[in-house]
Amino acid sequence: MATYIFGHTTPDSDSIVGAISLSYLKNKLGEDTVPTRQGEVNPETKWILEKFGYEAPVLKTEYAGENVYLIDFMESSQSPKDISEATILGIVDHHKLGDLKTNAPLEMWVRPVGCSNTIVKEMFDHYSIEIPKDLAGMMMCAILSDTVIFKSPTCTKEDTKACKELAEIAGVEDYKALGMEMFIVKSDVLSATPRELVLRDFKDFNMGGNTIGVGQLEVVDLNVFDNMKEDLFAAMKELKAEGDRHSVLLLLTDIMQEGSQLLVISDTTDKIENAFDISLENDQTWLKGVMSRKKQIIPFLEKQF
Amino acid sequence: MATYIFGHTTPDSDSIVGAISLSYLKNKLGEDTVPTRQGEVNPETKWILEKFGYEAPVLKTEYAGENVYLIDFMESSQSPKDISEATILGIVDHHKLGDLKTNAPLEMWVRPVGCSNTIVKEMFDHYSIEIPKDLAGMMMCAILSDTVIFKSPTCTKEDTKACKELAEIAGVEDYKALGMEMFIVKSDVLSATPRELVLRDFKDFNMGGNTIGVGQLEVVDLNVFDNMKEDLFAAMKELKAEGDRHSVLLLLTDIMQEGSQLLVISDTTDKIENAFDISLENDQTWLKGVMSRKKQIIPFLEKQF
Repeated sequence: MATYIFGHTTPDSDSIVGAISLSYLKNKLGEDTVPTRQGEVNPETKWILEKFGYEAPVLKTEYAGENVYLIDFMESSQSPKDISEATILGIVDHHKLGDLKTNAPLEMWVRPVGCSNTIVKEMFDHYSIEIPKDLAGMMMCAILSDTVIFKSPTCTKEDTKACKELAEIAGVEDYKALGMEMFIVKSDVLSATPRELVLRDFKDFNMGGNTIGVGQLEVVDLNVFDNMKEDLFAAMKELKAEGDRHSVLLLLTDIMQEGSQLLVISDTTDKIENAFDISLENDQTWLKGVMSRKKQIIPFLEKQF
Repeated sequence: MATYIFGHTTPDSDSIVGAISLSYLKNKLGEDTVPTRQGEVNPETKWILEKFGYEAPVLKTEYAGENVYLIDFMESSQSPKDISEATILGIVDHHKLGDLKTNAPLEMWVRPVGCSNTIVKEMFDHYSIEIPKDLAGMMMCAILSDTVIFKSPTCTKEDTKACKELAEIAGVEDYKALGMEMFIVKSDVLSATPRELVLRDFKDFNMGGNTIGVGQLEVVDLNVFDNMKEDLFAAMKELKAEGDRHSVLLLLTDIMQEGSQLLVISDTTDKIENAFDISLENDQTWLKGVMSRKKQIIPFLEKQF
């Protein structure tokens, strides 16, 4: 029976590439694994897959009775609905310790680094397994994406080291230029509906019994959203109602200005304002220096709920 | 501010030695850490500490406001009462994923192996840090203890490999003989009260809202308990009432016969009987081949609750 390896719902490049890279490693170690995904592949990830000649993992959303490895998440809110009926053999992740449980001992490679693929690189080194050239290129892109080309406060020296070593294996000389090229692809927000944009990199968090959804869009120039704010707010309101969410937040991150415009739809905006010591105007504000949902948003929200 | 490193409540040799070995490694890596313990040092661990010339870690039961690493556990029921007010920087463990949570990303070295010190050995190798001779001897003993000299079903090839490498560093030729010597020390149950015996290696588990306490005593000859059963049952009843526990189980493990006498005090003994497909007689039964609480007891209880 094959073991499935997958990332979180609404997968990003780290989740998709991580499923592929971890599955390759596990198979080299003699296991029988298959990479899968819980949702649509986003435009950035499509670009990465095409550039390095890989197929997207198969879409699979039910895992009852299966053996699984999780990569890039350990929250039930980002898991398949039937995760409690699956056997979690292992977790590779770089987030906070969430609310998943297991009935038996497991394998966990968790590090406070900027990207899951940095940890997968560590695993390849640990087992002295060679990384194929094109796989290395994809892992490098996942790190450049998650760390916003090393600009995110989540970026550690382990990430930059792994990225440089992967660039060398991939034969990519100017990996920062490649990263910018990737972020320009990511910045094409005009070909998607507002709802698709809010959901593109969207995660639900369970905070004291409340579901808080937080989306993030990283672009090279914030102006692309100028005529789109009202439509984004409308999509956020829709998602709030549908998912019985307490709040829906959207971070519009400008990777050149290194900050984020925060959009908020909430039952209690004062809690959001208190979390970041801000005053919202028209349900939004500029958060200077804020680029990381994980490090600069979620912990402060958690304290309020 | 120093970071504290400690194992579970009612610490065993793996928890005590693991706090010392992980703290040594972390300090070599430039961190400022102090090994501590949550409870009394048991006779087996005392023997190990004396043999290799180490002091027991300092007793410390409150950690609010502190930075901590956990070793050999990740269950709130085995944590200090104020664990939610501490910052968990990392966890090194070989148990199932429990119910602890963090607000921020952390470091986790979790493997489905027989002993936490096997993982610490892996960490020493990972960072290419040399292990001092006497520390290696203690880590070797922790592995021999947790794996019952490789007889436990929890023992993996990683454990035997690490143990052999540690024995070499420690200059111990016949490590199995040393293991037997250690288990003979552990088998001295006559110098303790029945209550002390039940509590010597006792862990509480939260199962569907019920607290189930499971103790284990590993001896080279089960006959030592022959005139002691009634007193052990009385101590178990006491602990059940005091801790508002649903059940208290005690495993009397014979490491030569490779099985355990199970003693049960429970509100619903049928659940315990169903868990292991057994019939209790006088609240006890022989479980052939059962040596591991973690692998052969807890998962089957979990399914019932």
